[in-house]
Amino acid sequence: MSSVDGSMAGGKAEKAEKFRRQAMEVSAAQACIIPYAHLLDSEWVVLAEAQGRTLAENITAPHPYPHFRRSGMDGFAIISADTKGCSSEQPVELRVVDEIPCGNLPGVKLVPGTAARIMTGAKVPDEADAVIMFEMTKEMVKPDGDLQHKYIEIRREIEVGKNVTPIGLELAEGDLILEKGRSIGTGEISVLATFGIHQVPVVRRPRVAVFSTGSELLSVEEPLQDGKIRNSNTYMLANQIREAGGEPYILHAIEDDLELARSKVAAAFAQYDIVITTGGVSVGDFDIMADLVAGDDVQMLFNKVQMRPGSVTTAAVKEDKLLFALSGNPGACFVGFELFARPAIQKMLGSSRLFLPEFSASLGKDYSKVNSFTRFVRGRLEYSDGSVVAYPAELDESSVMITIKDSDVLIVIPPTTAGVHAGEMVKVLKLPRGTV
Amino acid sequence: MSSVDGSMAGGKAEKAEKFRRQAMEVSAAQACIIPYAHLLDSEWVVLAEAQGRTLAENITAPHPYPHFRRSGMDGFAIISADTKGCSSEQPVELRVVDEIPCGNLPGVKLVPGTAARIMTGAKVPDEADAVIMFEMTKEMVKPDGDLQHKYIEIRREIEVGKNVTPIGLELAEGDLILEKGRSIGTGEISVLATFGIHQVPVVRRPRVAVFSTGSELLSVEEPLQDGKIRNSNTYMLANQIREAGGEPYILHAIEDDLELARSKVAAAFAQYDIVITTGGVSVGDFDIMADLVAGDDVQMLFNKVQMRPGSVTTAAVKEDKLLFALSGNPGACFVGFELFARPAIQKMLGSSRLFLPEFSASLGKDYSKVNSFTRFVRGRLEYSDGSVVAYPAELDESSVMITIKDSDVLIVIPPTTAGVHAGEMVKVLKLPRGTV
Repeated sequence: MSSVDGSMAGGKAEKAEKFRRQAMEVSAAQACIIPYAHLLDSEWVVLAEAQGRTLAENITAPHPYPHFRRSGMDGFAIISADTKGCSSEQPVELRVVDEIPCGNLPGVKLVPGTAARIMTGAKVPDEADAVIMFEMTKEMVKPDGDLQHKYIEIRREIEVGKNVTPIGLELAEGDLILEKGRSIGTGEISVLATFGIHQVPVVRRPRVAVFSTGSELLSVEEPLQDGKIRNSNTYMLANQIREAGGEPYILHAIEDDLELARSKVAAAFAQYDIVITTGGVSVGDFDIMADLVAGDDVQMLFNKVQMRPGSVTTAAVKEDKLLFALSGNPGACFVGFELFARPAIQKMLGSSRLFLPEFSASLGKDYSKVNSFTRFVRGRLEYSDGSVVAYPAELDESSVMITIKDSDVLIVIPPTTAGVHAGEMVKVLKLPRGTV
Repeated sequence: MSSVDGSMAGGKAEKAEKFRRQAMEVSAAQACIIPYAHLLDSEWVVLAEAQGRTLAENITAPHPYPHFRRSGMDGFAIISADTKGCSSEQPVELRVVDEIPCGNLPGVKLVPGTAARIMTGAKVPDEADAVIMFEMTKEMVKPDGDLQHKYIEIRREIEVGKNVTPIGLELAEGDLILEKGRSIGTGEISVLATFGIHQVPVVRRPRVAVFSTGSELLSVEEPLQDGKIRNSNTYMLANQIREAGGEPYILHAIEDDLELARSKVAAAFAQYDIVITTGGVSVGDFDIMADLVAGDDVQMLFNKVQMRPGSVTTAAVKEDKLLFALSGNPGACFVGFELFARPAIQKMLGSSRLFLPEFSASLGKDYSKVNSFTRFVRGRLEYSDGSVVAYPAELDESSVMITIKDSDVLIVIPPTTAGVHAGEMVKVLKLPRGTV
């Protein structure tokens, strides 16, 4: 006999009691979690480090944008009334009295009959109401007593406002420019920089502790051993946590010892905002998470979900903090995180978008596995002539790890006794990918 | 007169010469760049820091996966021949001679008539060829002389291989698991961890210098001044560079002084892999990039592209390194980076995907602006019943910054004299977004 502890000897009745589980619908299970995901404090970061963070406050425009009347062309700022009635036959001549490069202010007050050379992006003189393109003018020099004066000739009427970007075209002062809960990417950074918001109020990232459980786990650095597997789920989860906006903390693996697990998890609750475990949630004799969440100080939210993979996903609350006990199977662990832990992290960040984006696609090939639970099948999207088609991965068992990397969606296959056929419309959940 | 340097006095002929530009097609301009984007050296990073990096080598499986015959169920490992012909009427009894938790090895050699209690994920004994689910057996204890022996009763035939995951189901030893040039995300990290690849060969990130040019620029920290704008493009570019896989280095802004610009840019070429400037490329009198790329030691690749915005985008080669001179207009700068600088960075990383992903979508509303150049219009995708619809942004002039944040695609509007109507099929280029 191999060396095992006494729990394997437990009778069937006792086991049934210990593992009694009522499967909850996915949406109901998600709804259970949300009330316990509390918005975290905010903090300030410099703009250069704001990428990927979540805004803690609404940002309003401190000034209109543009904040001055801007020339949209290289040309001449003019008073448009001066061009009234002019044509090739009756050109008008305007004296050039100023030159305005970008960043400089007009130096001469324009009066009728005058113009100012101006560059794209420069401030249009207050008296001018249009800019005529450089290429639509003819420059000339004329003597005026001892002086030489520059003139331009214009051969067509120019309308009021031509090539002048008005103040506030993009935004008025006080306009909401970025709403709180928004994730900060390139476009947001561009807006913040434009308005000089170099310190950005963001929500603190949730600190998420990750434990793996199971004495079958080797560390990633250890040589392979027969019958054991490497602890890959913690690395996977760490990446998922980062993508969801949290800060992962990989803690030591928990061996199959209930008391040890209990004390480690209790310690983690004191330090972290969320605790996630992987492994130890199936109905095997050594699965300890069921015991762990049965303690007096822990309130179980659910310990079974009507989904495949990951039906044994468990969530609990301790000291008003969330514990997620995810499956040890890589595929089930991956899905469990995205459906349950991600929304909790997003809620703590104050995000306006808690769940994976959802839309419909046509199924690319028959999917014949039947189940009384909803399946979340890894798949990839293809676009073709304006249609979006979702192809399920060849291998999508909960224990299969290899196809996670090739998937950009989870295809939702509802409970079915007949499978779903190619061409039928299915719901898909878009997975995050760090890259395009 | 405002204080300006002498260059503004230049005559029209001289200016025309200086700014003579032949507009190149976008795809031809992209093709010009690629030969000068050289693959960079590789380096090693620890797995926990591999996210977002690009693999420098093919990764093959160092062992099959799974690497042992794995039980897919909690149950009993058996020799399936023992169940031949058994039924509810003729049950078979097998003596339980071993217990195999996950991570432990079988301790007893199975012979016909015996079985081993086994957990999900544990190694199936060599002699066994099937696992029967716990719930499909009945356990009993029978005396044998002074000893009590455990037995299970089985009431149906179990087929060979049932609930046993064979060695190499997912991957055989030597299989290509990740091809070089692949970007590392959650799924890739999971695979690398599974195979114990804790040091990952990745390509060094290209170091990209960013200069802005133009004396109209305020730093983001400075108070607003009339006629001036904040230097937001460098922040925007820094983020685009990071998303494309490069390391941004923001250098001091270049004022409108050709010699100063020349020496600063020359110094940057010695230290960085790519140099990007923003501003100074239109046909204004103070635009210096045209002069800068006209030097003897610089080979100009193109200085005008048949596109809007960003037609004045310029690319050049100096000392076998690429210089991109992007427009100072935020919208044009953004597009110029994504179409030209991103592919160069991706090529230097050895990426298999140089350009933005491209697919077709139906246009969500009429787009009536006409142009003889191809337009790259910011837009957002919507999915509806298996169709993809692209909506152009309300404001998409090259000078407009505010709509970049709401865009996830560039809609490609070919040269047209009539506009494109809602419902027509258009090509879209998917933009990177840090978040889902």
